[in-house]
Amino acid sequence: MTKGRMEAFSDGVIAILITIMVLELKVPEGADAHALRGMLPGFLSYLLSFIYLGIYWVNHHHMVHTADHINGRILWANLHLLFWLSLVPSATAWMGDNHTLPIPTAVYGAVLLMPAIAYYVLQQSIIAAQGPHSRLHDAIGRDYKGKLSPVLYASSIGLAFVRPWMADVIFVLVALMWLVPDPRIESRLG
Amino acid sequence: MTKGRMEAFSDGVIAILITIMVLELKVPEGADAHALRGMLPGFLSYLLSFIYLGIYWVNHHHMVHTADHINGRILWANLHLLFWLSLVPSATAWMGDNHTLPIPTAVYGAVLLMPAIAYYVLQQSIIAAQGPHSRLHDAIGRDYKGKLSPVLYASSIGLAFVRPWMADVIFVLVALMWLVPDPRIESRLG
Amino acid sequence: MTKGRMEAFSDGVIAILITIMVLELKVPEGADAHALRGMLPGFLSYLLSFIYLGIYWVNHHHMVHTADHINGRILWANLHLLFWLSLVPSATAWMGDNHTLPIPTAVYGAVLLMPAIAYYVLQQSIIAAQGPHSRLHDAIGRDYKGKLSPVLYASSIGLAFVRPWMADVIFVLVALMWLVPDPRIESRLG
Amino acid sequence: MTKGRMEAFSDGVIAILITIMVLELKVPEGADAHALRGMLPGFLSYLLSFIYLGIYWVNHHHMVHTADHINGRILWANLHLLFWLSLVPSATAWMGDNHTLPIPTAVYGAVLLMPAIAYYVLQQSIIAAQGPHSRLHDAIGRDYKGKLSPVLYASSIGLAFVRPWMADVIFVLVALMWLVPDPRIESRLG
Repeated sequence: MTKGRMEAFSDGVIAILITIMVLELKVPEGADAHALRGMLPGFLSYLLSFIYLGIYWVNHHHMVHTADHINGRILWANLHLLFWLSLVPSATAWMGDNHTLPIPTAVYGAVLLMPAIAYYVLQQSIIAAQGPHSRLHDAIGRDYKGKLSPVLYASSIGLAFVRPWMADVIFVLVALMWLVPDPRIESRLG
Repeated sequence: MTKGRMEAFSDGVIAILITIMVLELKVPEGADAHALRGMLPGFLSYLLSFIYLGIYWVNHHHMVHTADHINGRILWANLHLLFWLSLVPSATAWMGDNHTLPIPTAVYGAVLLMPAIAYYVLQQSIIAAQGPHSRLHDAIGRDYKGKLSPVLYASSIGLAFVRPWMADVIFVLVALMWLVPDPRIESRLG
Repeated sequence: MTKGRMEAFSDGVIAILITIMVLELKVPEGADAHALRGMLPGFLSYLLSFIYLGIYWVNHHHMVHTADHINGRILWANLHLLFWLSLVPSATAWMGDNHTLPIPTAVYGAVLLMPAIAYYVLQQSIIAAQGPHSRLHDAIGRDYKGKLSPVLYASSIGLAFVRPWMADVIFVLVALMWLVPDPRIESRLG
Repeated sequence: MTKGRMEAFSDGVIAILITIMVLELKVPEGADAHALRGMLPGFLSYLLSFIYLGIYWVNHHHMVHTADHINGRILWANLHLLFWLSLVPSATAWMGDNHTLPIPTAVYGAVLLMPAIAYYVLQQSIIAAQGPHSRLHDAIGRDYKGKLSPVLYASSIGLAFVRPWMADVIFVLVALMWLVPDPRIESRLG
């Protein structure tokens, strides 16, 4: 019961975030090809953030599925993750409006870094609740992706001040790293 | 479990899209009959898009119901469909503001074409997961509507540059084609 | 399964409508008592519409609970109801901005009339699907409230052009009529 | 069934409130460090309100879990709570824009006071429905936090007119009081 409600609540928040982001895709003022072209950076930021939220949804789904018992610490670790995810739409809109400038790009990197840390904390809370023979602990293995991602996001924050496009490359690479299917995990957590 | 969460997440996203579209129906500035009349094109665009999202919701519902097992490919094909559906509110608002102009009309046609393709991809993913004796494959039969719709949407994009109203006629015709009940499918997938 | 998804989808749409209405409660420009007082008409419109949507949610809940089987006609009658309910936030915001003027008040009356009719159509669809010994048909009895409400809403549209406050009185009276508990229904449909 | 729908509806409303609040976090106009600093008060208001809504969600979750039977009075007491919670985003945005001024701060205090009262009313409705040996009544014990919170919120309204920061201190203290885990409750209601 408790697990079902936490899943449903998280799904609700992620579904809303993914769709309200689209409200920030402002309808162009004009009605010509130029107006449409002006939407491109906003559209690409939206696409990237949609993929990130999709990845979180799919992974959250698999991870919570393995939890046996939900305690107060897990509930709050989950709300903590949702808090940082909730900043993605604003950061996306800001970067979409100013994609060549360092500060909005660095803020976007920070807004990707924080949920990555929060996800790790949630994962550790579930493992701690499962005790020594944690199913989740076995399933994630050495968790290369989970450990590498925060390092890459942190470096994107620095790179945004050198060349914003370098940070953009990292955002795309990390998304691709997670999109590539990982049959080992799926067969264990499916 | 997985199937339930994918259905609930999709329902959530479609429910949000259907309702945030209404936020784009801007409250008129004045308070007279003229202000009300000015809302008519936006209202008609909203009505059309509501019907389209309703059709997707009903069909998605029937289709996913037949799936036995949800794998990573189906999860992502479903997110891909939701991504394109999420563009419907912005395209609706843009066409509502500029309903006699070619580019917003063509963009609306493209925003109907993409989820039609994504729906087909999702359908094929479910059929592939079901293997040789796919229930879904039997139920859709020759899938005339599913194959005709993308062709009609694609032609609406071209017609928008000839006469925007011709594209509008196609949008209405395709919606009617799907609204007409198809008892054969319902009895099999109900 | 089908019934569960229709309920969940309807709950989702009503939950979103009830909460996005609050977005139309514009944050005042100033920060003094005058700015706060300026929010009063908008707040009262919001309160009234919240109560109306709450009444629909509670009644929809009881009504769909009695349905045994959901067919295509019921799914679409339900979407039809949700379509008209989705116009409540815009009509509320317009009346909140112009509460002493006839046209926004008449439009609000019309936006209450249409879901009342759609609710009746949905009710008849469920009764038809249940056949001669319909549980819902027995439970609603002579359905005085359901038949009186559309008549009152229709008269509010006319009264809005005489004196807008007369229409406002009707809106409040109909809400009170539904809020008063009806133990007979609850005990049968609970 | 009824309980499940009431929980799902409440979760939906709270999930939407928590996420639409972020829409009020306006994307800055500029793209420099100054623009980012200008978001700080809004961000802190958002963080505080997110925590409050999270606390309500977690406690609502535990409380409704103990209910055996949902009647009309509980349904409406729950809608009453959701109504007051729905005002949190607007009050948050107003205080975020004017955090050093008395009236927006006092309104924020009032918007925290009302759901605290509504929560108490809902709690009493569930206890009344459970009869003399109410599980919920036993679980809440003397309910110090539930009784102290409204007193503190009421005093924050007064303090906002003396020094707004004093009210802010109370908002933070009450949030902390609820965040500190209460193992006694969790073990009984978990």
